[in-house]
Amino acid sequence: MAEEFKVTPWEVTGDIDYDLLQKKFGTTPIDDALIGRLAKYGEIHPMIRRGIFYSHRDFDRILDEYDKGNRFTLYTGRGPSGNTHLGHMMPWIFNKWVQDTFKVPMLFQMTDDEKFLFKDLTLHDTTSMAYENALDFIALGFDPDNTKIILDSKNIDRLYPIALKVAKKINFSTAKAVFGFENTSNIGQIFFTSIEAAPAFLPTEMAGKQVPVLIPCGIDQDPHFRACRDVAPGLNYPKPCTLYCKMAPGLNGSDKMSSSDENATIYTTDTPKAVKKKVGRAFTGGKVSVEEQRRDGGNPEVCAVFKYNFFMFEKDDAKLNELADRCRSGEILCGECKMCLTEKINRFLEDHQAKREEAKEIIGSMAFDGFKW
Amino acid sequence: MAEEFKVTPWEVTGDIDYDLLQKKFGTTPIDDALIGRLAKYGEIHPMIRRGIFYSHRDFDRILDEYDKGNRFTLYTGRGPSGNTHLGHMMPWIFNKWVQDTFKVPMLFQMTDDEKFLFKDLTLHDTTSMAYENALDFIALGFDPDNTKIILDSKNIDRLYPIALKVAKKINFSTAKAVFGFENTSNIGQIFFTSIEAAPAFLPTEMAGKQVPVLIPCGIDQDPHFRACRDVAPGLNYPKPCTLYCKMAPGLNGSDKMSSSDENATIYTTDTPKAVKKKVGRAFTGGKVSVEEQRRDGGNPEVCAVFKYNFFMFEKDDAKLNELADRCRSGEILCGECKMCLTEKINRFLEDHQAKREEAKEIIGSMAFDGFKW
Repeated sequence: MAEEFKVTPWEVTGDIDYDLLQKKFGTTPIDDALIGRLAKYGEIHPMIRRGIFYSHRDFDRILDEYDKGNRFTLYTGRGPSGNTHLGHMMPWIFNKWVQDTFKVPMLFQMTDDEKFLFKDLTLHDTTSMAYENALDFIALGFDPDNTKIILDSKNIDRLYPIALKVAKKINFSTAKAVFGFENTSNIGQIFFTSIEAAPAFLPTEMAGKQVPVLIPCGIDQDPHFRACRDVAPGLNYPKPCTLYCKMAPGLNGSDKMSSSDENATIYTTDTPKAVKKKVGRAFTGGKVSVEEQRRDGGNPEVCAVFKYNFFMFEKDDAKLNELADRCRSGEILCGECKMCLTEKINRFLEDHQAKREEAKEIIGSMAFDGFKW
Repeated sequence: MAEEFKVTPWEVTGDIDYDLLQKKFGTTPIDDALIGRLAKYGEIHPMIRRGIFYSHRDFDRILDEYDKGNRFTLYTGRGPSGNTHLGHMMPWIFNKWVQDTFKVPMLFQMTDDEKFLFKDLTLHDTTSMAYENALDFIALGFDPDNTKIILDSKNIDRLYPIALKVAKKINFSTAKAVFGFENTSNIGQIFFTSIEAAPAFLPTEMAGKQVPVLIPCGIDQDPHFRACRDVAPGLNYPKPCTLYCKMAPGLNGSDKMSSSDENATIYTTDTPKAVKKKVGRAFTGGKVSVEEQRRDGGNPEVCAVFKYNFFMFEKDDAKLNELADRCRSGEILCGECKMCLTEKINRFLEDHQAKREEAKEIIGSMAFDGFKW
């Protein structure tokens, strides 16, 4: 029997059965036909090919509109509760590909209010973290002229009128059913989904005409956008469309990289030494002894090091397959494999950290409505 | 047995037993000792003398602080769901007296968001009504240099960070118990009390030190400020203090003047002819025939016309008592009494409507943080 798992926007526990989750949420698989259709816009991103972005709501409708000449707006976000780690970066890297491929505007929402309401943090904490997280986002190279960062506490004047309309359409029963709220949930948590819905409708409000929105993000966020899609027609807004990815795994073998285990989590500001140490301790599919592994081979399916190559660090499918084969045959041992991944991550982070410094120069110009951090 | 009554910030029904309500809410009577203490600041307002403002929370604490030289800030508000009527004006007139007597700043909150969430109105409707209602408020002569009007939808950037702190401290159970929310209540309604709490803490946030706030308003608003007071210590804010009045009666004899019966409601923009017609139809304590009334007298206790004199239009206690005596003795008949009240109201409205026009010139300067209507 499969282990129990739980996926909400605020809690991910257990071994996630992504097919079952998709059925539970009622989202649509990204199938071969859709992938085939995507090919006409450019090279398909590995995260699509590999089924990391694996599920959606009405992505085909976005493409239909795009083919008719109607540009969509990209929208994704981050709940700033701590330093950025590679698990957070993964869907952003995909978002960057979508922006480059379709040449569309991007809204990036930092929910400092949400994290204040759900965590033992001050609003000052979450706003500061939002700044740090935004640097990582910007460092990925989003078009600065076509990307705006929304900070909830600073842009609330623009979000609130939309959030009110959304809130008026969602009653406590629905919120409880969708998010699992209880009597002990605070009244800000209960209201919050209205604020996460607002950027999905902001482009329509700003343009004064229907602008479809595409939201590529973790599938844990689906409850928000399910509620958001339900209310859209009654408000004369287009239903937001979504693309959902699986959670980036932890180095400890868990299904989701999480700041609750810092040793299993690589932050964007980690030093090469820290990365080496963390990868060195990673959970692998190796055997108890070198002899045994040379003889029987390792198991890449369960290996966090392999997963990191799969999710982010080996874009070449042939090389990835070769790595798996060499592991299974006992040709490559965990030490060597860890060293390779460490090098790849450190090369990525060296470049990223430089761009992150440069991001400090342009972050001001990317603030939505010109808010001050 | 007393008729069932219900008093919430959103619904007032039945014959209100104000003593019982005070007990239910747990507020403190304004007793002779407190009235005596008030005398030292100036002439006591008739609404205090007559027990219209009859209950409070920690008003004595406000006076203690005032006597030590610590100035408080006044805060009251309006839910803009329609034209201003005399029932709305009544507590504002009292607020004006408090400002004049203690020379303190005033924050006036217009909850256009609340009325959008609770009524079948658009936000555009409620924002427009807020403007019209604010003109009436300003026309009463509040010190323009010491009075600021908060419009929730426009000042949300200042209210939201405080509202978030409040919301984090109130769970659904509490909100349900205090306000009577149900599963069908929308999630904006559930959150709203945080927004009404915010101006109570705004002076402290702005001054960077504890500034006590006094809120004179209808006792129907107590659930908000009870919740607000409960969370204050945990947020290191001073508990807001309150002064509560009874509801202004309707001309139809009901306990609360309400726009649901337009003929029993005098609006600030009514013509002299409309006032005459409405007062002419008022519910009185008169008898069925002139003969009977001359013989047995009328009953001022149940008479809406008398109540209007009592609440707002006869400030002289001696004259008010004389009017009651002349009614009871059959000396004055309802027709004459209605004519007198009509004249008083029309004199008041003529002056008010002129000042209301002048208010259009200064309303812009009184917008909190310089928002544009």
